[in-house]
Amino acid sequence: MKLIDLSHPLLDGAPAFPGDPILTVTQCGRLATHDCNTAQILMGTHQGTHLDAMFHCFDDGRALDRMPLDWFYGPARCLRIPKQPNELITEQDLRRHESFLTRDSKIILNTGWHYQFGKSCFYTDQPSLTVEAARYLAARGLRLLGMDMPSPAQQWVEPHRILLSQEVEMVLVEALANLDALPAEFTFIGFPLNFQGCDGSPIRAVALCL
Amino acid sequence: MKLIDLSHPLLDGAPAFPGDPILTVTQCGRLATHDCNTAQILMGTHQGTHLDAMFHCFDDGRALDRMPLDWFYGPARCLRIPKQPNELITEQDLRRHESFLTRDSKIILNTGWHYQFGKSCFYTDQPSLTVEAARYLAARGLRLLGMDMPSPAQQWVEPHRILLSQEVEMVLVEALANLDALPAEFTFIGFPLNFQGCDGSPIRAVALCL
Repeated sequence: MKLIDLSHPLLDGAPAFPGDPILTVTQCGRLATHDCNTAQILMGTHQGTHLDAMFHCFDDGRALDRMPLDWFYGPARCLRIPKQPNELITEQDLRRHESFLTRDSKIILNTGWHYQFGKSCFYTDQPSLTVEAARYLAARGLRLLGMDMPSPAQQWVEPHRILLSQEVEMVLVEALANLDALPAEFTFIGFPLNFQGCDGSPIRAVALCL
Repeated sequence: MKLIDLSHPLLDGAPAFPGDPILTVTQCGRLATHDCNTAQILMGTHQGTHLDAMFHCFDDGRALDRMPLDWFYGPARCLRIPKQPNELITEQDLRRHESFLTRDSKIILNTGWHYQFGKSCFYTDQPSLTVEAARYLAARGLRLLGMDMPSPAQQWVEPHRILLSQEVEMVLVEALANLDALPAEFTFIGFPLNFQGCDGSPIRAVALCL
């Protein structure tokens, strides 16, 4: 059994999706004065490696606490679809892997963009799913779509709405790390914190490989 | 396969360990004005169901990012040791289960205290491991000790130092929920968020039962 870490480090001052809060980690208690070290975290619900609930894009969509736990755990497959900055991920790119894109499957897209995490281009120049590619994935009925980009697309509104809609309800796991370490098949583990009524959560995503 | 949620809900305004920040969840983005719902989280590293790193009690102890992932995942056993408010958990209570308290094991103590979560007594009247009981568990060499109390003991300093010391390095998982739903044996899953250099993290703890 081998566990592979798929989450980027969370560091004080780390950048966030434009407009989201900057991650702030502040030491509160100190051993000398409080008998223990403690800290306070300030973060957005979409900080670093995280997942989106349907409520992110629909006021009547499921929040985290209404999503079954087995949506976040189970057999998964990683697809290599290498892309350059600002390049499109097309329906044709995905159709090459069609036999794996089955109902209720958990699929991770490795575009290579995870190597840009922490650079200023990470949020601005990411590869993007086309609207047609998002519609194709929705029609295939995946349960979970993971990716190394911070969002399915630079023009994020429509792809998000397609994938998080009530008819589709696909879990979107964004800004995954370390995807070149993955075998083709593994067990994905990535539970959100138990925030009630929330639109998303940072996660510690881990691959369990046998 | 069945997944059982072992984490209490995280709610805006929820109480915290005395002196720690109060959990604050603030909606930032709204669908009507920002095209999506987003929120900002402010929380202590020991909010709700969480785990302690060695750095919590030792300046040179391991922080979260220096703890191997297999410390947070693997076969586990839940022991029922029912206790009243303010009652002690003694070495004798634990010795009854000695055959399960083996090197590198993951053990959860179900005292029944999880039913008090959210009440004002939760942090003040919890059952407590005696110092001798903590020393006994340290000598048995467990890898992970979970519990439904918010801390191993009301007088928390010495038991924490015994269990988190460099010689013992036991992962402490505190304020677990829903323990009566557990079978005796299961797979424990409870990875911390990937905060670098931190003393602890809220977790989504889950039991995987076959």
